[in-house]
Amino acid sequence: MPRVSQDHLDARRRQILDGARICFARHGYEGATVRRLEEATRLSRGAIFHHFRDKESLFLALAEDDAARMADVVAEQGLVQVMRDLLANGSEHPADWLGTRLEVSRRLRTDPEFRARWAERSEQLTTATRRRLRRQREAGNLRDDVDVHVLAAFLELVLEGLVSHLAMGLPADNLGPVLDLVEETVRRHRAREEITPA
Amino acid sequence: MPRVSQDHLDARRRQILDGARICFARHGYEGATVRRLEEATRLSRGAIFHHFRDKESLFLALAEDDAARMADVVAEQGLVQVMRDLLANGSEHPADWLGTRLEVSRRLRTDPEFRARWAERSEQLTTATRRRLRRQREAGNLRDDVDVHVLAAFLELVLEGLVSHLAMGLPADNLGPVLDLVEETVRRHRAREEITPA
Repeated sequence: MPRVSQDHLDARRRQILDGARICFARHGYEGATVRRLEEATRLSRGAIFHHFRDKESLFLALAEDDAARMADVVAEQGLVQVMRDLLANGSEHPADWLGTRLEVSRRLRTDPEFRARWAERSEQLTTATRRRLRRQREAGNLRDDVDVHVLAAFLELVLEGLVSHLAMGLPADNLGPVLDLVEETVRRHRAREEITPA
Repeated sequence: MPRVSQDHLDARRRQILDGARICFARHGYEGATVRRLEEATRLSRGAIFHHFRDKESLFLALAEDDAARMADVVAEQGLVQVMRDLLANGSEHPADWLGTRLEVSRRLRTDPEFRARWAERSEQLTTATRRRLRRQREAGNLRDDVDVHVLAAFLELVLEGLVSHLAMGLPADNLGPVLDLVEETVRRHRAREEITPA
């Protein structure tokens, strides 16, 4: 019997996650029935649950996968860029992780068990954000009068607001200058450099 | 037949709104049945729907009432103070308008008809925030290099993030310094004043 290659397993896992992402975003966690997951992934329930123990595990893997992809963008380009991408996508073509994130938010509010399981997995974005900010500080791009933890918490709070704002279908075309202000708030201020003694 | 005084009508209306606020926060819009509204207000359905045409009108009146109360605090003390109050209340005793606001957020996401009805009523907080910021600018307390509309949108986005954060039951004990940073961002910077030519 030929052994299934790791590449094949990885590709199958990716296929399931990509289909499930669309399915959870469109129908919500409860509405994403096994039948709908089969349709969205174009795989049988046997194939799906060979890779993931149950629907809850699939959802958690998806949320973790999305958080990891966001953490990658944060590491490369910063959290403000993640927010700019979110705005650029607009409400008609929301970023594909937005749906998952909203489901995470909703379940955190309504499901204490989920809250406990999620707590240990949600640190990725915070860790990536802090690491990026520390590097930026070392490079002299970041203000140095406020703790990195405070700046990271500030950026995450604004992201949370933006996610909520877009989810409510509120107009977002005026938010570009707000993100400029957010970015300026964490950066080293020119005025401060100008008054540094020579 | 004696005419019912306006004071009496107002008091009754207030009694209904206060009971309904608790009921909607605890059970959500759909879960707030007429029977539960009767229990929470200690009034009969006849009395309740004498004052409000239907449950939807009651909910909208409540959301408007909360927005007006928030707008009053904003006018007196600013939106940052509203956020500080929210933090001070903590997750065990959330501000009483938080439940209503979360229900508004949820219904904006899921109910396009509600979105249309709410759009015309949601301007109060924005108007109060802009008015306060304009006064602060005239008093010389506000930075003058960023448009008041941008500063107002920034503060509202942070408030949205804070509401979402608290609703998810995430730890909030580290957010005081974040609000200091938010406040500093909209204020006139000392450093800038120091470099103003004499």
